[in-house]
Amino acid sequence: MEQRLQLLTLGVRDLAAARRFYVEGLGWESTLEVEGEVVFIQLGHGLLLGLYADLANDAGVELTSAGTPPFSLAHNLDSEQAVSDFAARAEAAGATVVKPPQQAAFGGFHAYFTDPEGFLWEIAHNPGLSFAPDGRAQFGG
Amino acid sequence: MEQRLQLLTLGVRDLAAARRFYVEGLGWESTLEVEGEVVFIQLGHGLLLGLYADLANDAGVELTSAGTPPFSLAHNLDSEQAVSDFAARAEAAGATVVKPPQQAAFGGFHAYFTDPEGFLWEIAHNPGLSFAPDGRAQFGG
Repeated sequence: MEQRLQLLTLGVRDLAAARRFYVEGLGWESTLEVEGEVVFIQLGHGLLLGLYADLANDAGVELTSAGTPPFSLAHNLDSEQAVSDFAARAEAAGATVVKPPQQAAFGGFHAYFTDPEGFLWEIAHNPGLSFAPDGRAQFGG
Repeated sequence: MEQRLQLLTLGVRDLAAARRFYVEGLGWESTLEVEGEVVFIQLGHGLLLGLYADLANDAGVELTSAGTPPFSLAHNLDSEQAVSDFAARAEAAGATVVKPPQQAAFGGFHAYFTDPEGFLWEIAHNPGLSFAPDGRAQFGG
């Protein structure tokens, strides 16, 4: 059984605002957009982020929309300065920095922000986690 | 600005139960485990899934724990039968199938389940989405 995740889909209430944040604010290019419905953004080797306005209906479940959902997405960077710069750019693009850039318990440096929909991102410089050329995670460094 | 997601961290209430589901139930190997704290599972090229008991404290935000959080993780497979098989295996491992395997609006075949913590997964066969050898998403097919 292959261990794979190909799509991470955020069920957004305001697709236009989510698009403004990720595509215009962060400057990430979209791969495919269906207006009023979905925006796909490539976020790695074989991985797409989806911003999707109709997730609840598609899955047939009621989705929780209040507060911060219990998960985070992490964007790792090469230096502490890059973490601070990214947090500032995200804030300028409409994010709320909920934990300012600071030393992290894991030994690196990080910040957390929530995007305009309330999704939680960690921006981290973590010398203890790297990825080999074949993509495998390597802990300790 | 590089478009990358390296970590997807689920803030779990019951780490042991989450581990049982993903590692023992689905049979996915963990890359690193710190007992009582975190389990990391490689889910692709340069991508880790984290099961983390202390996300709220680490991020300094209150996390929503009721209901289904507004996002899904997708695991894509090569055939309709594989989708049905995976849904059955997930159910046997403790998942709740919230949308049984069926034809999907996007033209393929899919099912949705929630894991023991309530996180939503889509299991899909989607002939209209593939990934090139370099990992880039290709729509239409």
